[in-house]
Amino acid sequence: MMQLKEILKNKGGLPVIVPEASTVASAIRTMNQHRVGSVMVQGPGGEPIGILTERDMIRLYAEGESDFETMLVKDWMTTEMTIGKPSDTVSEVLAIMTVKRFRHLPVVDDGKMVGVVSIGDLVKAKLEETAFEAKVLREYITT
Amino acid sequence: MMQLKEILKNKGGLPVIVPEASTVASAIRTMNQHRVGSVMVQGPGGEPIGILTERDMIRLYAEGESDFETMLVKDWMTTEMTIGKPSDTVSEVLAIMTVKRFRHLPVVDDGKMVGVVSIGDLVKAKLEETAFEAKVLREYITT
Repeated sequence: MMQLKEILKNKGGLPVIVPEASTVASAIRTMNQHRVGSVMVQGPGGEPIGILTERDMIRLYAEGESDFETMLVKDWMTTEMTIGKPSDTVSEVLAIMTVKRFRHLPVVDDGKMVGVVSIGDLVKAKLEETAFEAKVLREYITT
Repeated sequence: MMQLKEILKNKGGLPVIVPEASTVASAIRTMNQHRVGSVMVQGPGGEPIGILTERDMIRLYAEGESDFETMLVKDWMTTEMTIGKPSDTVSEVLAIMTVKRFRHLPVVDDGKMVGVVSIGDLVKAKLEETAFEAKVLREYITT
């Protein structure tokens, strides 16, 4: 059973962070610069306190909240997040994401955010895992 | 080898279409309404002529092109798209998407667009296919 810590190890790098006092426009520019679909906000202890995603931008704009240059991240970020831990398995997290319909999960270890996994990361890992399992089983049959 | 037509059959529904003369703002509202990450533009014969995605919105905004209420879809849509056909296999399309780095593929049959598959649709299908293969192999071993 593959765990989140293995995904974070393969993926490398820390999550893309923005200060809570930055503007939404600045957060959008950060997403674009790093070619990612979400940015995280950290508290003073390194804990995740909010997330802003490209899908949020579409929703806010469509709802008429489009003055991104003056809107602050802290006022528009999603603060109720499901948090993962490094020992969570890929399968259980994928199930939770599918049921609760979200695409980015901050991973916290000892109170500090150590990464973010996207549903894309998880599906890719799960795919490699099942392909590997099928390969092992195939070799078992042919040898 | 699973083909795109099976994915479109399971997914159901036609792609979300916007007129090329509509504004980018209107396209964003359409994306939000349908909860999708892209909208397509069709030509007079039903052929796909352009695509606009949520990632494009992030990029345009970050590059200072943010007057979405006056920008027209036809001026900002991506017109150079890789096109799929219903008989293409999931594996070959996934490989092309991974190499060329795009997330939405219009599928054309007899000159008309019959659907759009996202990388998420394909990975999900591939996952189910490999899980099914592993299950069959497992049963083969245990029986």
